[in-house]
Amino acid sequence: MANLQTYIDQLNSLDFKNMFGSDFYWTWDKTDDELAAVFAVADALRSLRERNISTKVFDSGLGISIFRDNSTRTRFSFASACNMLGLEVQDLDEKKSQIAHGETVRETANMVSFMADVIGIRDDMYIGKGHTYQKTFMDAVTEGNTDGILEQRPCLVNLQCDVDHPTQCMADLLHVIHEFGGPEKLKGKKLAMTWAYSPSYGKPLSVPQGVIGLMTRFGMDVVLAHPEGYDVMPECEEIARKNAAASGGSFTKVSSMEEAFKDADIVYPKSWAPFAAMEERTVLYGNGDFDGIDKLEKKLLAQNAEHKSWTCSEDMMKHTRDGKALYLHCLPADISGVSCEAGEVDGSVFDRYRVPLYKQASFKPYVIAAMIFLSKFADPQTVLKKLEERGVPRIFG
Amino acid sequence: MANLQTYIDQLNSLDFKNMFGSDFYWTWDKTDDELAAVFAVADALRSLRERNISTKVFDSGLGISIFRDNSTRTRFSFASACNMLGLEVQDLDEKKSQIAHGETVRETANMVSFMADVIGIRDDMYIGKGHTYQKTFMDAVTEGNTDGILEQRPCLVNLQCDVDHPTQCMADLLHVIHEFGGPEKLKGKKLAMTWAYSPSYGKPLSVPQGVIGLMTRFGMDVVLAHPEGYDVMPECEEIARKNAAASGGSFTKVSSMEEAFKDADIVYPKSWAPFAAMEERTVLYGNGDFDGIDKLEKKLLAQNAEHKSWTCSEDMMKHTRDGKALYLHCLPADISGVSCEAGEVDGSVFDRYRVPLYKQASFKPYVIAAMIFLSKFADPQTVLKKLEERGVPRIFG
Amino acid sequence: MANLQTYIDQLNSLDFKNMFGSDFYWTWDKTDDELAAVFAVADALRSLRERNISTKVFDSGLGISIFRDNSTRTRFSFASACNMLGLEVQDLDEKKSQIAHGETVRETANMVSFMADVIGIRDDMYIGKGHTYQKTFMDAVTEGNTDGILEQRPCLVNLQCDVDHPTQCMADLLHVIHEFGGPEKLKGKKLAMTWAYSPSYGKPLSVPQGVIGLMTRFGMDVVLAHPEGYDVMPECEEIARKNAAASGGSFTKVSSMEEAFKDADIVYPKSWAPFAAMEERTVLYGNGDFDGIDKLEKKLLAQNAEHKSWTCSEDMMKHTRDGKALYLHCLPADISGVSCEAGEVDGSVFDRYRVPLYKQASFKPYVIAAMIFLSKFADPQTVLKKLEERGVPRIFG
Repeated sequence: MANLQTYIDQLNSLDFKNMFGSDFYWTWDKTDDELAAVFAVADALRSLRERNISTKVFDSGLGISIFRDNSTRTRFSFASACNMLGLEVQDLDEKKSQIAHGETVRETANMVSFMADVIGIRDDMYIGKGHTYQKTFMDAVTEGNTDGILEQRPCLVNLQCDVDHPTQCMADLLHVIHEFGGPEKLKGKKLAMTWAYSPSYGKPLSVPQGVIGLMTRFGMDVVLAHPEGYDVMPECEEIARKNAAASGGSFTKVSSMEEAFKDADIVYPKSWAPFAAMEERTVLYGNGDFDGIDKLEKKLLAQNAEHKSWTCSEDMMKHTRDGKALYLHCLPADISGVSCEAGEVDGSVFDRYRVPLYKQASFKPYVIAAMIFLSKFADPQTVLKKLEERGVPRIFG
Repeated sequence: MANLQTYIDQLNSLDFKNMFGSDFYWTWDKTDDELAAVFAVADALRSLRERNISTKVFDSGLGISIFRDNSTRTRFSFASACNMLGLEVQDLDEKKSQIAHGETVRETANMVSFMADVIGIRDDMYIGKGHTYQKTFMDAVTEGNTDGILEQRPCLVNLQCDVDHPTQCMADLLHVIHEFGGPEKLKGKKLAMTWAYSPSYGKPLSVPQGVIGLMTRFGMDVVLAHPEGYDVMPECEEIARKNAAASGGSFTKVSSMEEAFKDADIVYPKSWAPFAAMEERTVLYGNGDFDGIDKLEKKLLAQNAEHKSWTCSEDMMKHTRDGKALYLHCLPADISGVSCEAGEVDGSVFDRYRVPLYKQASFKPYVIAAMIFLSKFADPQTVLKKLEERGVPRIFG
Repeated sequence: MANLQTYIDQLNSLDFKNMFGSDFYWTWDKTDDELAAVFAVADALRSLRERNISTKVFDSGLGISIFRDNSTRTRFSFASACNMLGLEVQDLDEKKSQIAHGETVRETANMVSFMADVIGIRDDMYIGKGHTYQKTFMDAVTEGNTDGILEQRPCLVNLQCDVDHPTQCMADLLHVIHEFGGPEKLKGKKLAMTWAYSPSYGKPLSVPQGVIGLMTRFGMDVVLAHPEGYDVMPECEEIARKNAAASGGSFTKVSSMEEAFKDADIVYPKSWAPFAAMEERTVLYGNGDFDGIDKLEKKLLAQNAEHKSWTCSEDMMKHTRDGKALYLHCLPADISGVSCEAGEVDGSVFDRYRVPLYKQASFKPYVIAAMIFLSKFADPQTVLKKLEERGVPRIFG
């Protein structure tokens, strides 16, 4: 791991002034320099912590988490990020709150934010809803801050919406960068983002969307593959196409896993629900038609079952470059013979990549902490330097 | 916002020595000086925080919260107050604990308090129960401290009982004081505490009771209005009457919203359940008669529906002084056309007062923090001064 | 309470070097010196806290709790211990996580541990499962740390498994040591660990097992008594037998409560389920046979009801030394006439021992903190000394 000055030098070469006070919704809102700044700060914070130097920049203050869907990894990553910066996590559990039909998002947003420095929200279940919820929430706190209700404006970290999963994809990318030895080494590499069969139904589209929206920015050849009907949001494909053109890479779609995997350097096989079906579910949900949702689920499971051959088996892996592509997954994976009879990946493939997979996940707390850090400090270089000089040990002794 | 010395000067002029080590059950337990001390400390803490000066007085220690009813605002206010003072909130979730029929309150109180500096309790659902629970709990920790079981005696902050809701009403009052320019400006002002229609059933009486018990202490003309049968606890009316007499104001009851609103400077229209019905519900609950509770609920909803005209409409607001009374609500409100078809307040009225309403809520964390502060420090002036001198920044940098 | 140097001198005389970096599963994994070190550190931490000296050794970091069974006392003790050392508790609530059939313990263990310094686990419901779960979990974090996934290896504190309940039994013992004036005073004392009737079913065996496994190490005459069929794990009896032989005490089994209580200095009457039945339940649970579990429960309740005379009544207490044995219980107790018609102990007996019982419980946070402290610091004497010298007040002022 490099010394702190290396990261400060990196930051000095980047333009990220617009991140100060900003929110993190989608990676494609951010410039290349801004993403590079996130990585530099993430690595700098990790370096400080590994040298037992406190990274506590908040003496007090709250990090509010709102999980409208279950979470382990992201919940603990957010908690870890807040804790290492000195913020105490306070979870808004909607079941224990008075948030009923009546209370508006605008009101809740203000009521929980009096001492909040950051808001982390996961809302990924319904197409067209998750991002909107986050936006409405943050508009409310902006207004609250302007109106003198909130002394500080908390920043948003999108912990997964219906469109993007930026903390996941940024952790994925930071892992890839570390594995390949730098972002410049990614040029010309082939990455396959493919659908994979899982016995479950309705996994969010935000991971494949986020991956094609982010990985196309580094000159890679990004290939998306899925069975017919499992399209992702067209807007995200459009972003991927533009990114690829700008970065000198490519974005293509193919119709089989084999073709996507062929000579790939990196593979990301993962189940997701078809976009059109998710849109249908959102309408059914809006109408309170739970019978309709049940029927849709049955239909989708049957449709799913026709594509069991989309699995990251040992044979499938042989198609990749030297049979040794880097296997990525956001976890948990549906592992054939372990968590289900037939799933996204063979047990032996998963086992071979277990260590890198867990390392991939280990970047998330630092990515989240860096997003917060860059929104809170106009001059993060100086703050990092001062933390090192302060030299408070994380563990006393 | 005044400088710290102003608040210290205020405190120097007040006698609040009995607050040291004391609990905060009801506002009418406290002298006028003691309430003024809460406001001075609340404003002082806010001033320090706004100047990025840490108010952390606890290096470690727990704030225990017990919510026997749902809460958003108060939960986050308590968490914020504890956090800004350096206490970590630990929620006693009775569903995850071993508190069954067997375990006594006395035992639980001691078991959760080994390292607790403050206990916040909401128990507002059953008349005659909430306050009793808090009292039993605090008697147990007093005994535990005397017996050498607890190294420190945590103090109580009543986060709403069946009788009073002091953190709400004190935040309401601090807001009113700020809006009118000082407590001395309240003399002669008219405040209307009125019932309002809501499609829901059984809202606690502690807010109207707390409001008439507190606002009558400042020389205001406080008017209580509600439909027949919606009386509050007679003891609270008695307190209001005595307070008004002592403060040179008045406490009167009228039988229509129009009359209460007439020339009012401040209005607080809000739904609540009839006291007699709540007493009946407590008996049914004690007998485990849930059919009876269902029947009672239906009866009350039908009774409620006869009073839909009790609503804070635009027309109703015109009765107030220049049509511009300050509108208060503890939130969340049942807003006609927003959260329900017909409710406590017109959407347009609510919208016009949104900013002051949210400001009203923003005082609660500071009021709670001040209650804790005054119970923990015999000489809060010196501690505030030392915090300013220490000058640890809340956000490093 | 002695001054800090006394505890440091104690530690200087003990060999506990193997505790550094180690986990705390069972007391019989630890040497006598290691247990003595836990007590010395627990008392030292308590002494610092009582003198308002901060014991915060972690500037940031998480303490992860996993409660696979309900808990009040242990939950708050763990939270208190973490808080006093500077760790923030993050509870892994399996209902809010993605831990489904698929996700392996190995994966979860790594995913929640990126910034974890300690893991506290309660898993006591199924014989042969609880300890195994803890072991699997900790093997995974060891591997994760070795593989470079986890920057630090969190240590385990067993918060109750199917075999032992070390934080409880160590707190019990520290209480006994304080009551009798030192561990050397326990030699020759008689302790009765007996079954007692409770109207409930299936209480864990870990307390009686832990008690006979620990208390036999101090030269006491430990007597175990229970109705036929309520045996504990044979392995634990074997440990007790060996301990007693080594310590110069004895371990015997008798078949009546009267005999066990006769001339006892300490009694620990408590309900538990029969080991064989718990094994049967584990099998039924493994097969998903919930009807079978219901039937087993009915059978056990009927069997239980035959032994209502096993109760710590006033008459029973008269059999003890001068009728004044120290009564112990891990709480909550089933108290006759209070929490149930007939239970483990008479209300009047329980009441007479309420203060010592609560004191007994008050040692648990310090015992847990000491276990963490000894796993994290190779030279705890120096760290304790430096904490005293640093002299940061726990409460500012």
